[in-house]
Amino acid sequence: MCRWLAYTGEPVFLDELICKPEHSLVAQSLCAVEAKTPTNGDGFGIGWYGERAEPGLYREVLPAWNDQNLASLAHQIRSGLFFAHVRASTGTSSSRPNCHPFASGRWLFMHNGQIGGYLRLRRRLEALIPDALYDRREGTTDSEILFLMLLAEGLETDPLGALARTLAKVTEVMATAGVTQPLRFTSALTDGRSIYALRYASDDRPPSLYWRSGDAGGSGKAVSIVSEPLEEPETWQALPAGEVLLVGPDRQIRFEALDLHAWAAE
Amino acid sequence: MCRWLAYTGEPVFLDELICKPEHSLVAQSLCAVEAKTPTNGDGFGIGWYGERAEPGLYREVLPAWNDQNLASLAHQIRSGLFFAHVRASTGTSSSRPNCHPFASGRWLFMHNGQIGGYLRLRRRLEALIPDALYDRREGTTDSEILFLMLLAEGLETDPLGALARTLAKVTEVMATAGVTQPLRFTSALTDGRSIYALRYASDDRPPSLYWRSGDAGGSGKAVSIVSEPLEEPETWQALPAGEVLLVGPDRQIRFEALDLHAWAAE
Amino acid sequence: MCRWLAYTGEPVFLDELICKPEHSLVAQSLCAVEAKTPTNGDGFGIGWYGERAEPGLYREVLPAWNDQNLASLAHQIRSGLFFAHVRASTGTSSSRPNCHPFASGRWLFMHNGQIGGYLRLRRRLEALIPDALYDRREGTTDSEILFLMLLAEGLETDPLGALARTLAKVTEVMATAGVTQPLRFTSALTDGRSIYALRYASDDRPPSLYWRSGDAGGSGKAVSIVSEPLEEPETWQALPAGEVLLVGPDRQIRFEALDLHAWAAE
Amino acid sequence: MCRWLAYTGEPVFLDELICKPEHSLVAQSLCAVEAKTPTNGDGFGIGWYGERAEPGLYREVLPAWNDQNLASLAHQIRSGLFFAHVRASTGTSSSRPNCHPFASGRWLFMHNGQIGGYLRLRRRLEALIPDALYDRREGTTDSEILFLMLLAEGLETDPLGALARTLAKVTEVMATAGVTQPLRFTSALTDGRSIYALRYASDDRPPSLYWRSGDAGGSGKAVSIVSEPLEEPETWQALPAGEVLLVGPDRQIRFEALDLHAWAAE
Repeated sequence: MCRWLAYTGEPVFLDELICKPEHSLVAQSLCAVEAKTPTNGDGFGIGWYGERAEPGLYREVLPAWNDQNLASLAHQIRSGLFFAHVRASTGTSSSRPNCHPFASGRWLFMHNGQIGGYLRLRRRLEALIPDALYDRREGTTDSEILFLMLLAEGLETDPLGALARTLAKVTEVMATAGVTQPLRFTSALTDGRSIYALRYASDDRPPSLYWRSGDAGGSGKAVSIVSEPLEEPETWQALPAGEVLLVGPDRQIRFEALDLHAWAAE
Repeated sequence: MCRWLAYTGEPVFLDELICKPEHSLVAQSLCAVEAKTPTNGDGFGIGWYGERAEPGLYREVLPAWNDQNLASLAHQIRSGLFFAHVRASTGTSSSRPNCHPFASGRWLFMHNGQIGGYLRLRRRLEALIPDALYDRREGTTDSEILFLMLLAEGLETDPLGALARTLAKVTEVMATAGVTQPLRFTSALTDGRSIYALRYASDDRPPSLYWRSGDAGGSGKAVSIVSEPLEEPETWQALPAGEVLLVGPDRQIRFEALDLHAWAAE
Repeated sequence: MCRWLAYTGEPVFLDELICKPEHSLVAQSLCAVEAKTPTNGDGFGIGWYGERAEPGLYREVLPAWNDQNLASLAHQIRSGLFFAHVRASTGTSSSRPNCHPFASGRWLFMHNGQIGGYLRLRRRLEALIPDALYDRREGTTDSEILFLMLLAEGLETDPLGALARTLAKVTEVMATAGVTQPLRFTSALTDGRSIYALRYASDDRPPSLYWRSGDAGGSGKAVSIVSEPLEEPETWQALPAGEVLLVGPDRQIRFEALDLHAWAAE
Repeated sequence: MCRWLAYTGEPVFLDELICKPEHSLVAQSLCAVEAKTPTNGDGFGIGWYGERAEPGLYREVLPAWNDQNLASLAHQIRSGLFFAHVRASTGTSSSRPNCHPFASGRWLFMHNGQIGGYLRLRRRLEALIPDALYDRREGTTDSEILFLMLLAEGLETDPLGALARTLAKVTEVMATAGVTQPLRFTSALTDGRSIYALRYASDDRPPSLYWRSGDAGGSGKAVSIVSEPLEEPETWQALPAGEVLLVGPDRQIRFEALDLHAWAAE
């Protein structure tokens, strides 16, 4: 089901979060403890903001624990906002275009979850992607469809509304098709300035999500959002199901309850 | 634009055609002479019939000249009917699902050519794949769409009609969209018994295709069909544009002129 | 620490053992239960005998559970003698030349274990490989050194003696260097006719090894040797530490106690 | 035989040299014009200096023209000193540890050339690597041996002497073994501050090397050193055979004739 982390704050070398902590994301790729599957070895990816408005992207099909390039890049690259993701495939093939995060312009997206009945619904879901965005589809995952739908639903100007409308539409397609499996969607979005993290499921088992806010070496506020605590579990807080955690450019934190219907209606 | 070969006859080790000849398919991956691009290093694939009705498949994103697994498999596997393909991408990414040949049930398909304006037409072309086949789409190439359309158009019972109807439909989509780039389609199909090889282009530049028929070590008839002669060029014959070369289970050869309109109308 | 299997008997499709059983080797790559590490995702390999005296070889750095080529090859290839291996690296990098099995002429070798202090001893161990064999070293593992030493010690004419002499020499190098970590060596060798499987450790924790002999579909005797039972655990027998299981071309089974000193002295 | 480039000057995005010029290094990977082989598709690598004393490293076995990660990294990473290399194997396998550049501490090395008779001499050459450095050998190339020898010969304190002594020793091994094939060695070294580029061959065919010095966007001096001019060939100068081009931390340029004997004797 995948594990991921997002960070914003004073620039840090990526390996400080991805590789070094006792239960780092790389450690979670080999042995996650709160995921449906302990092994998240079907590829991985990192996306980070440096000197350009658009993020850099490195995605690979090898397991994260086994990639020397990841170790070197994470040791070398310093960033004030980055995403990282380790993948456990829920059926689609291991290829770089199926690895997270996904990028479009200045936006990054990553996802932990699944659209119930996806293989059967795939075509109907793809139909929700407008023509103008369809040629950005490079892979076959439900996650990439969700990202392209978010872009179509106004992600760039109304991220929360886009989230609600996208999930509402997917829910409708699932209902129409009589799918009884749940929609699970614990995800993160960023434009390189703010982060929007959502923990959501249509049943009572949303994939885990934790966050921590604090001083980053005394030089300013930092916020980390993770599938599983990287270390010192008592210092992390679980995000309640159905909530969006918003981190602004000033790293101020705000919470919003996701309301598919209200937002969708706007 | 890719290079390929097809063989049917007495079982031979695959490397006899793929690796050993002076201008073998592996040699063509590094330095083709009749292709738009000399280098065909964006992955490769082999499909062969052994003891099952369905073919075996090995596809990889590395260049063919550089893959020790290919060398070992081609040296070890003996088959009386096989396909091999080296890829030069025309825009879509290098991933295994984008490599040829494509397989479905007992059928194999491979392709050298391009649908003009594909990136713009992709969605309209995908719409021609019926629901029941759509979940077999694993990649993003025009070639895979063509194969799924062929299956939808009755490949299993009427291969020539399926070819004509598929090309007619694609031509219509291109015309409707005002695409002026050509449709080029030099391809091979097999059900493990017969081979159907077509050299086609909507302009006057169909990708090259040659064939040779003869004794395979004196023990029976063999037919090889190749993008470029493997050796002794004078022993190969070019297939005229617009013609289908049919090789039956008894390796008897027959030619048919492709008539998009007549066949399509049937 | 790796998991492996060896089979000899009536030809079977490889996936009958590698993919289909409940606790198949592919299942063990994701979740082994008797290994030091549950995950064996650092590459894999298969070697099999077909129509040539030399085996075919397919090795890849992806996890075995995630490789569609493996699924297709194992479904297509039928063999009366094959090896398969899933790797958990003990420090050396993930590259195809570091994956098992290793091949030389008609011989195959695979290994589960470790030379204690290897990184420190590597050079001294490499020095035990004679010049004539040294250019076959393509990777950096201790396993490959052991195979080349076995070849040097007379594997082709005296497999048991070669095993004893190789382990005796490695033990001596370790002792001279003051290494206190154990030598563990649970391995299999074959020339395409007989199989030699050894479960050995210098301490009391040799990697697990089981075997089963029986009718293969009623058509003859078959012997399977595995790191972990593939199914129905009660039908498998553990090989005692320090013993070699020999399976002859007629699939008759014989056991020999390994005596490093006696054999080494011959 | 490989192609490479080195840059020092005002920080630039790597793609300005690696991807964008008409005859960029990526273009050379597909179609070099002054190399023994036009195709340099057997892997590639980049090494760059950022915020740490040690360089970052990204090496991959895919062709450079076909790697989206390279495109993204080169577009995102800005550096004032970097190396990039595209590989045409001269016999050793395609694996990441066989790709250039090679790194050790703050040093980077890359190479275009070949030790004549390498496969036969490999062991004798490896014997020249001292024990303390031997465990850094991860691959099987002659280039990696040369780098480890350079380190052993005092690269860190006397780069020119280390070059001369290393080549002198290799030459001696070749002579002793009666090798008549040439030693070709067009290479670059850096400690992250200075660059040492050498064009050398024991015969009269040293691999090509060019350099250009000038303003980088008006903001300071920049020096580029390349196997083949990236654009505007008339603005590049060929480095004479047997010469070392030294670029200091201030980007001042100096030339030294390589004298194996004199330097070796120091």
